[in-house]
Amino acid sequence: MSTKVTAVLLLLQMSSHFGSGSCGKVLVWPMEYSHWINIKTILDELVQKGHEVTVLISSASDSFYVEEGSAIKFETYPSAVSKTDMEDIYIEAIRKWIYELPKQSIWTYFSLLQELVWEDSEYFLTLCKEVVFNKNLMTKLRESKFDVILADAFGPCGRPTTLLETMSEADIWLIRTYWDLEFPRPTLPNVDFVGGLHCRPAKPLPKEMEDFVESSGENGVVVFSLGSMVNNMTEERANVIASALAQIPQKVIWRYDGKKPATLGPNTRLYKWIPQNDLLGHPKTKAFITHGGTNGIYEAIYHGIPLVGIPLFADQPDNVMHIKAKGAALRLNFITMSSMDLLNALNTVINEPSYKENAMRLSRIHHDQPVKPLDRAVFWIEFVMRHKGAKHLRVAAHDLSWFQYYSLDVLGFLLACGATVIFIITKCCLFCCQKFSKTGKKKKRA
Amino acid sequence: MSTKVTAVLLLLQMSSHFGSGSCGKVLVWPMEYSHWINIKTILDELVQKGHEVTVLISSASDSFYVEEGSAIKFETYPSAVSKTDMEDIYIEAIRKWIYELPKQSIWTYFSLLQELVWEDSEYFLTLCKEVVFNKNLMTKLRESKFDVILADAFGPCGRPTTLLETMSEADIWLIRTYWDLEFPRPTLPNVDFVGGLHCRPAKPLPKEMEDFVESSGENGVVVFSLGSMVNNMTEERANVIASALAQIPQKVIWRYDGKKPATLGPNTRLYKWIPQNDLLGHPKTKAFITHGGTNGIYEAIYHGIPLVGIPLFADQPDNVMHIKAKGAALRLNFITMSSMDLLNALNTVINEPSYKENAMRLSRIHHDQPVKPLDRAVFWIEFVMRHKGAKHLRVAAHDLSWFQYYSLDVLGFLLACGATVIFIITKCCLFCCQKFSKTGKKKKRA
Repeated sequence: MSTKVTAVLLLLQMSSHFGSGSCGKVLVWPMEYSHWINIKTILDELVQKGHEVTVLISSASDSFYVEEGSAIKFETYPSAVSKTDMEDIYIEAIRKWIYELPKQSIWTYFSLLQELVWEDSEYFLTLCKEVVFNKNLMTKLRESKFDVILADAFGPCGRPTTLLETMSEADIWLIRTYWDLEFPRPTLPNVDFVGGLHCRPAKPLPKEMEDFVESSGENGVVVFSLGSMVNNMTEERANVIASALAQIPQKVIWRYDGKKPATLGPNTRLYKWIPQNDLLGHPKTKAFITHGGTNGIYEAIYHGIPLVGIPLFADQPDNVMHIKAKGAALRLNFITMSSMDLLNALNTVINEPSYKENAMRLSRIHHDQPVKPLDRAVFWIEFVMRHKGAKHLRVAAHDLSWFQYYSLDVLGFLLACGATVIFIITKCCLFCCQKFSKTGKKKKRA
Repeated sequence: MSTKVTAVLLLLQMSSHFGSGSCGKVLVWPMEYSHWINIKTILDELVQKGHEVTVLISSASDSFYVEEGSAIKFETYPSAVSKTDMEDIYIEAIRKWIYELPKQSIWTYFSLLQELVWEDSEYFLTLCKEVVFNKNLMTKLRESKFDVILADAFGPCGRPTTLLETMSEADIWLIRTYWDLEFPRPTLPNVDFVGGLHCRPAKPLPKEMEDFVESSGENGVVVFSLGSMVNNMTEERANVIASALAQIPQKVIWRYDGKKPATLGPNTRLYKWIPQNDLLGHPKTKAFITHGGTNGIYEAIYHGIPLVGIPLFADQPDNVMHIKAKGAALRLNFITMSSMDLLNALNTVINEPSYKENAMRLSRIHHDQPVKPLDRAVFWIEFVMRHKGAKHLRVAAHDLSWFQYYSLDVLGFLLACGATVIFIITKCCLFCCQKFSKTGKKKKRA
């Protein structure tokens, strides 16, 4: 259950008018929260280039997406899931991921994990059914003759499917990481790594926040956020964190919507929302405490900021492990860490020069690409529309059955040949031996 | 023995002054003939961007490379191999490849192939030794503090080495093909496909040639070349080809330096040299008869021209097989083909619309890249200079021993664990059985 895929591009139907320079029709099957941040960045660019973009959303989550004055069209379908239901599903899933999973023994861990994944799948299946069984909607979509579908692979929908089938059906895969964070490995030519496509140079902060940041002097500031899905935590954890933050010489900007912790120091300010990319791009920012979501990590890489990772769920432990291995982060355990652990980690990434150096090295690699990630993402979407897919990048392995894929047909044939040869040789030997022994007996008799 | 690699970029030593926007020093270990065409295109671009380029060449082949007025520096080292020797080595190798190899039985084919490869290696080893044992030259090179080495992997020189070792040492691999010609397969992130980097829009032809081409009217022209290494052929083969060409309604431009064939038709003109890229880009050109070298195939793809492939040696059969599978070419056997075979093949690729359509499809794919192949090649060379290599793209597998690579250490450990468990269980069972049988005997006695 990785959340590193931004988008899969599936070709639906080609309008015969589409050609070089003309504009296409894009249908989007999105995902909420951090995934939407990536897709939204791509969609804004597509709209700016004159393409017609339609996002299919459930009535349970329309308030999450719809934005006043946006050129993106939203096609809302009625859902039996209410807005409260949807929020409850997410909150309950996250609670189990963060607080229950880490307490499990090795024997119960995987069964709870599977249960969580099934619950998620069940929810996505409901959304999917509400689309494909909605006759009016389906007719409308069919008549719209879209050129391409941009789908988030996290929430699959086309009937029950496997990862392998989805992989083979999509023309292009856009992955929301890059080789600055990933460990090098072989990839297929229809996979492009567009991590950090949402990052941009920092804009000025709101006045009040800028004043607070500037008041930090030489020591600078620390930015702290556990992402868009986690707004609060237990009082005990909040106090452990707040008391650690109170002991550092930096000012701290903490995105937190829970009850103000008793141990909160005067150097720490709580905000319900922060302009994270702009803060990480501020020259006063010294470190970033993060849950390790891909978006936050890429904003830190983009601006060259060292991190303290406190991974909570899904791909976050994996992301933090990667950035730690690259020497730009330290990792803490959310459930077991003490104030001292957080204090030490923060002091280390801020004062030990190697963390800043490594963050800057990753930043240099990230910025030194022949084409920016966002431009590549848009290029491939337009490519799929221009060429009615990207068949030339599709490996023939997708058309093999499993026994062909593992060369079992070839092995079987070779084994059969070998067995036949051995059988013939054995038969010949036996025949010769019989002949020889008969001749021997005859000679003896003679 | 594939010739599809244009260049390997190896980092030697970083001058401390090199930074963004500044210029670097590039040392080049080149290869002759078609390989030089690719490297030369890259070097011209590097020189134009202000980099200092030094090409290391043997005195046996200096006349091949050195060009009046070029900003590329040539460092010639004395060689015991004379110019005539070198030419003889190439001519003899090609004669064996074209005329002797195809006559071999399956038993002698591979021994002759190995002999040919060893002869080539021996020649490259001589060149290599003449560089590394030349103390003055080596001192001069060391003192020059080059930022990067651009080497053609076809002629290795770093002591006796393996392909695997060369692969692991190079920071970036530039391959002179692309997914228009290649079949999709997984590749490593430090491999970039820059096929067709030497292609460019057609320039006007020389007056005499343009007049000849224009005289073809509606029928157009056919371009025929067997590449830069093959200038002539046996009289019998030349007559078979010429008589086929004489029967087509097109005019033919044939690059050929041998004796004029008796069967040559009035529609065919022989040239010692042709501006191949400009001819293939001419609107009158209908087809290209080629030996299937990568450069010629890419010029045809670039300009969308269908082909008749007559592969001779090295990677040519493989290239022709690829372009045939993509539906833009037919393949003939140089040794066994008759005039009728060539005539039929030409008529088919010219008159059957699918060949032109497929050639145009490949051409569209080729031109639709976010960054042009030449720009990507130059980007990676400059990247290696800017970042002192490209370590972030290097797979960790290069640092594994062979038994780690195949997970034999893990398998061994698991097998040992399994064996121990089985051993203990067996011992326990035996112990219990003995105990039980003793008790049984005691009971019996009692």
